[in-house]
Amino acid sequence: MNKEITSIQNPYIKQLFQLKEKSRERKKSGLFLIEGEREISLAIKGHYELDTILYYPELISEAKVSALTKQQTNSIEISKEVYQKLAHRDTTEGIIAIAKSKSHELQSIKFKTKNPLVLVAEAPEKPGNIGALLRTADAANVDAVIIANPKTDLYNPNSIRSSVGCIFTNTIATGSTAEIIAFLKQHNISIYCAALQASKLYTAQNYKQASAIVVGTEATGLSDEWLQNSTQNIIIPMQGEIDSMNVSVAAGILVFEAVRQRSIH
Amino acid sequence: MNKEITSIQNPYIKQLFQLKEKSRERKKSGLFLIEGEREISLAIKGHYELDTILYYPELISEAKVSALTKQQTNSIEISKEVYQKLAHRDTTEGIIAIAKSKSHELQSIKFKTKNPLVLVAEAPEKPGNIGALLRTADAANVDAVIIANPKTDLYNPNSIRSSVGCIFTNTIATGSTAEIIAFLKQHNISIYCAALQASKLYTAQNYKQASAIVVGTEATGLSDEWLQNSTQNIIIPMQGEIDSMNVSVAAGILVFEAVRQRSIH
Repeated sequence: MNKEITSIQNPYIKQLFQLKEKSRERKKSGLFLIEGEREISLAIKGHYELDTILYYPELISEAKVSALTKQQTNSIEISKEVYQKLAHRDTTEGIIAIAKSKSHELQSIKFKTKNPLVLVAEAPEKPGNIGALLRTADAANVDAVIIANPKTDLYNPNSIRSSVGCIFTNTIATGSTAEIIAFLKQHNISIYCAALQASKLYTAQNYKQASAIVVGTEATGLSDEWLQNSTQNIIIPMQGEIDSMNVSVAAGILVFEAVRQRSIH
Repeated sequence: MNKEITSIQNPYIKQLFQLKEKSRERKKSGLFLIEGEREISLAIKGHYELDTILYYPELISEAKVSALTKQQTNSIEISKEVYQKLAHRDTTEGIIAIAKSKSHELQSIKFKTKNPLVLVAEAPEKPGNIGALLRTADAANVDAVIIANPKTDLYNPNSIRSSVGCIFTNTIATGSTAEIIAFLKQHNISIYCAALQASKLYTAQNYKQASAIVVGTEATGLSDEWLQNSTQNIIIPMQGEIDSMNVSVAAGILVFEAVRQRSIH
């Protein structure tokens, strides 16, 4: 018989609520929550290890849960009240996984080609922007996304949600700006910093060789450390009244220009 | 001497609070709130008529307010409490304008060139996406942004904020899908619908002639009405695990491909 939890006072449920709410708890335990069928199946595809599955049987059947997780995961039936306590979204799919986080070390990136295309974002502030960056990286099939000096942990529920789950299938690493610059140089990857100063029109740069496209924050742009190590600064021409663009839009324009060039033989 | 309001019970302040909160009230009165110096100065630049300025003198001086509005606007000193009641953002600039809305009729669009570039978004759901679309449109200096079947009024505080004020300087119109299709045809503007079916690679399409790039919602894409009237469907190649991209990122990639092509003579 399956285990069942019906009370939000249950100590385990209280602990899971902390995982949902607090980055510190996620880091300490190495666990985080994943909500929704699509996201959980992408996590399985991305070789995340699932610790436990919680499901609310009025929304999702035990059979469906078993099919999704291939029966290899400990599953617990929960009550509506418990589900609502742990769910982050309005949509009610009735399923939440507790998964083990990955380390996202730079050195664990294995490039499949000699000329990888890498997207680097320095200190993105909003989880929603991280999600949009990851969706762009997914669509462009970049070789890796690297987050420099991250401000939030990757497993923030808003990052997961806004990535539509591709956070689990993208190759993602994090590190300090200094570590990432050293890593890129070690792999002979040219560094193209999105910047306003000393910049070449982004369409005039060739990205067919190993390239990292590096974007900073909307408020302050890239740090000097990046600009000093830039192979070439690149700029999207701004012809309007305000001199700013959403960071994930800018990253999308730059990455897809590289994809366009690489598709021309 | 200037007028001064210190109580949030003041009927005028209550009325303004309704303008901030409710689309219906904004539509009924034809008035809306603009917060922040930059946004107000862009509204002035965009020929919006300001009805009244409210300012909290501990955050912004009367002299600064006069310089910003060129003294042509009735200004009222408000208390901290009133300011906090009406302010939408965390940042505290101390200034809020009450402005008159514009009609945004299709027929009021005046194209300056024979080959305009137009961005059309059908029923964008999130005010944040509208803001990002408008920032992209601003940067690309498109001739007009047209919102089909809008779900929120343009003067939603989140749309204004996320547009960083370029909502006031962009040429924007709204209308039903049928009206907009008729308008585009009347002006001999080709319709390029972002779609998954029967689509040409977006980089293989030429946008040098009069072009409208049309994007739908992330959830359901464009309506059949658009697809049936499409000159050519276009697609951004998706090479990843999830088959979706943020709508404002997709619009940015498409619009800047058109800009790139147009810059090559």
